[in-house]
Amino acid sequence: MMGGMTQALEVETGETPHTLYAKHSGTLQRALAAIAERGYWSAYPESPSPKVYGETAAKAGKAAFEAYLGKKFPIDQPAVTGWVTTERSPFGIDLAVSYPHPDVDGLLAAAAAAMPQWRDAGPQARAAVCLEILSRLHEHVFELANAVQFTTGQAFVMAFQAGGSHALDRALEAIAYAYAEMTRHPSEVDWEKPAGKGEPLRVKKMFHVVPRGLALVIGCNTFPTWNSYPGLFASLVTGNPVLVKPHPRAVLPLAVTVRYAREVLAEAGYDPNLVQLAAEEDGEGLASTLALRPEVKIIDFTGSTAYGEWLEANARQAVVYTEKAGVNTVLIDSTDDFAGMCRNLAFSLTLYSGQMCTTPQNILVPAAGIDTDQGHKSSEEVAAGIAAAIGKLTGDPARGVEVTGAIVNDGVLARLERARTVGELVLDSREVEHPGHPGAVVRTPMVVRLDAKDEQTYGSEWFGPVSFVVTTASTDESLAIFRETVGKKGALTAAVYSTDEAVLAAAEEAALAAGVHLSCNLTGGIFVNQSAAFSDFHGSGANPAANTALTDGAYVASRFRIVQSRRPI
Amino acid sequence: MMGGMTQALEVETGETPHTLYAKHSGTLQRALAAIAERGYWSAYPESPSPKVYGETAAKAGKAAFEAYLGKKFPIDQPAVTGWVTTERSPFGIDLAVSYPHPDVDGLLAAAAAAMPQWRDAGPQARAAVCLEILSRLHEHVFELANAVQFTTGQAFVMAFQAGGSHALDRALEAIAYAYAEMTRHPSEVDWEKPAGKGEPLRVKKMFHVVPRGLALVIGCNTFPTWNSYPGLFASLVTGNPVLVKPHPRAVLPLAVTVRYAREVLAEAGYDPNLVQLAAEEDGEGLASTLALRPEVKIIDFTGSTAYGEWLEANARQAVVYTEKAGVNTVLIDSTDDFAGMCRNLAFSLTLYSGQMCTTPQNILVPAAGIDTDQGHKSSEEVAAGIAAAIGKLTGDPARGVEVTGAIVNDGVLARLERARTVGELVLDSREVEHPGHPGAVVRTPMVVRLDAKDEQTYGSEWFGPVSFVVTTASTDESLAIFRETVGKKGALTAAVYSTDEAVLAAAEEAALAAGVHLSCNLTGGIFVNQSAAFSDFHGSGANPAANTALTDGAYVASRFRIVQSRRPI
Repeated sequence: MMGGMTQALEVETGETPHTLYAKHSGTLQRALAAIAERGYWSAYPESPSPKVYGETAAKAGKAAFEAYLGKKFPIDQPAVTGWVTTERSPFGIDLAVSYPHPDVDGLLAAAAAAMPQWRDAGPQARAAVCLEILSRLHEHVFELANAVQFTTGQAFVMAFQAGGSHALDRALEAIAYAYAEMTRHPSEVDWEKPAGKGEPLRVKKMFHVVPRGLALVIGCNTFPTWNSYPGLFASLVTGNPVLVKPHPRAVLPLAVTVRYAREVLAEAGYDPNLVQLAAEEDGEGLASTLALRPEVKIIDFTGSTAYGEWLEANARQAVVYTEKAGVNTVLIDSTDDFAGMCRNLAFSLTLYSGQMCTTPQNILVPAAGIDTDQGHKSSEEVAAGIAAAIGKLTGDPARGVEVTGAIVNDGVLARLERARTVGELVLDSREVEHPGHPGAVVRTPMVVRLDAKDEQTYGSEWFGPVSFVVTTASTDESLAIFRETVGKKGALTAAVYSTDEAVLAAAEEAALAAGVHLSCNLTGGIFVNQSAAFSDFHGSGANPAANTALTDGAYVASRFRIVQSRRPI
Repeated sequence: MMGGMTQALEVETGETPHTLYAKHSGTLQRALAAIAERGYWSAYPESPSPKVYGETAAKAGKAAFEAYLGKKFPIDQPAVTGWVTTERSPFGIDLAVSYPHPDVDGLLAAAAAAMPQWRDAGPQARAAVCLEILSRLHEHVFELANAVQFTTGQAFVMAFQAGGSHALDRALEAIAYAYAEMTRHPSEVDWEKPAGKGEPLRVKKMFHVVPRGLALVIGCNTFPTWNSYPGLFASLVTGNPVLVKPHPRAVLPLAVTVRYAREVLAEAGYDPNLVQLAAEEDGEGLASTLALRPEVKIIDFTGSTAYGEWLEANARQAVVYTEKAGVNTVLIDSTDDFAGMCRNLAFSLTLYSGQMCTTPQNILVPAAGIDTDQGHKSSEEVAAGIAAAIGKLTGDPARGVEVTGAIVNDGVLARLERARTVGELVLDSREVEHPGHPGAVVRTPMVVRLDAKDEQTYGSEWFGPVSFVVTTASTDESLAIFRETVGKKGALTAAVYSTDEAVLAAAEEAALAAGVHLSCNLTGGIFVNQSAAFSDFHGSGANPAANTALTDGAYVASRFRIVQSRRPI
């Protein structure tokens, strides 16, 4: 008959939740301020420079990564039925890491058993433990960066930033939102209602934060950590045990994550099964099996529209957060910096070979051309300008591959081949030999010209280094196409170039109507595909590309419930 | 090419949003404090006494109500196809009010056309206008109370409180949560990222609150205002035009609401079609027609489990908030105030003839009986004690009907008839002549004894004045049944009586596991079926009786999205 608010047992070897809270409360408070201000802030330095991380960090991280290769991944999980080896590096190196394959019933039972103690620990202890996990992952950020690089094909710096420090920032941001939501009400209050001349009515009320249930995070191939961390930590900090189902081609970054999360949980006196890896054979469909289990109450998914919509339609017992495909669009009306515009767009199209969910695809240009600081440019000249800038960026292979990285999988190559034939090829994609990794599959971006009537082609996502310069009748038609395609197919990003405030206002109105974030006149060192933690919202939840933003209040508020008990005083 | 943040036009006859904000900001700020503190607070006095509302208010309200009877309801809406008359008063008076029946396309088009200006008005102007609507409704609270009384069967004081002042409090609470959520981020920020020795990167970012789309509120027969106001005002204040589809038997309270809302909107210079009434013929299925329209993005529903589940499964384009049926449960283990316990439960069972979503149904008592301040009581004696207290409360018809009110519809009567035969009848329901309204259908509560094995009977909701005293093997079995039935069928309320802290802790643990709010040892003037705005959460969203709480952060956060635009400085 015991129960209620048992505090986590302190274990001799680890730090107590209380100690951990003292250690991390400054960071948490700063993060809480940052989510309210939405200005610039970052908790985890994005530069992999030895000046920041020390002379030995990069080497040690690489060594730790290499120590995983060709072996069983060192993780102690229950209910293991065998081992799976599913990765193939876009850089052509042999990974051959094996991961435990779970018995589904055993996995779920272990997660469920871990829940009550974690629930009863309360928001503060949970936040402290989650921040300690981030801190531990940050200690291993070079190891993580290598794991991201060699499973996704990202160049190292990008893998370090997007896969390491920025992912940690996004995790912290989600924890901050969740912590704010869980603690916006007191945990206990004395309610006293006046009763005329009589004694007031007095009731003691307790407000308990109760987790929704088991949480499932379904990782993607390209950004295994950045796209998974917000959901993983938002669910965990609100009391839900998390099952991490990585993409079969990008297991290692999440296996490393789960490993250190379990280590910290155990040290702090909690059940490590609060975070479990659910690796699978390629094509096994483990995500669907887990997603339909009644115990699973929260699902976070990044990937294809078809599978995201399947989850939304079928995993009805769960709240489902999805980021899916979209048609990111750039509207070009005029510019006072033609070279800057072309350079900026070229970089956005080339970065990670266009394999970002935020990479622009459709570039809408009026048939009559545009006014620029270099005089009038025809629509052909605009396309040629962008193509030339891409050529410059990728001309030197050694420098180029640090922008492009490698092609993540064969699906992208097949799409690239198909794209060559759908319109007028302005810039073909080239194979490039990677100076550092001869086995790497590297391709430069392709630019294809289409007409406004080719909506069959540009109206859906061509994931990878494919962009379409679409000729429209006018900026008005560009605006109409923008509203129509983004409204129908969604987008994670949009951009506009114009020197005319009325056009910028109309583009903003169209962006609000279509529900997509808009970047205006980017010609310098800010790119449309960048979204900064604690400031930019990623995804809006207001168009078909995502049903949520990572992260905001709506992203965290439904991951727990408040259950109250009351007793007259 | 215009667009963007156009302020609402000021009209000569009305108050401007700015003036309205100044008028109501004190109330809004106090409400924001109240939702953070969750102690006692109320903005709209619950006593209908002349000392509070003046000598003429009650009479004027009654006259205003009576002026509606037998006529077309005075409302100016577009797209009217005809008039419907569907109400039948549980008090037996002739209502005969006709309401405009809408053309669905016209209704939706008018709502959509109203949206951009309302979106661009921004959170502060919208909150100010919504508070002015509450203020206007409060001026007409006696009119509203009469409308609630004579459509729902509630006694006057209850109709005044639950249907008037408490409903307004709940509306204000929802507005406060939504306002807090919309304004937690700045609307504009200058982001400045250090760039080593170079110039920092500078970007101006605008964060726009964008409504989700059209909102549909589906009202219920028993609490047309209390259950509809949180959703109505949460949607409206976040920028969504609202379609109010009342229950065909309880149209008037929502028609009055829509009338004054439209009046205030027009006076403030906004489109009155932001709030429209969607009245229908009984059985027409207008709710389903509207719920499946792609324009409808938010649905709030209170009513049957079957229809709530249909909405959740089929209105996939919308976010759907439902309050459905449940099996509210009381667990009796022991008490130090047997008389107080019986009185308290008797009042909860009798109030509005058990026609509250919060009325207890299953009262679990161990077969061996319970220890009390009056010595040991057998399970029969517990049932008899509750029955006797009901008898006392309803013995004098004149006083009794002020607690019971009238039976809302024939479905309740049929259920009452069926319940007489399912177990041992401890207390039969009696017909009572209403001294003030000879045509009123009044019934006293019924108490039936069942055994733990009769889950087929007590395992689902018997809406109305039917309660089951269920004999269990022990308090442990009571706890198991409590977890099982509430986990499976849901509940909006639960209560426990025990003098043993270990039992209270176990009941709390069971309540957290089942996700239901728990009241402990209520023997005085607080009742399990009461939930106070700004303090008690109504519904938890953590069990099948409701997928949301009215109100909390999760209830408001998904009613809008943040769409940002950014531009280098």
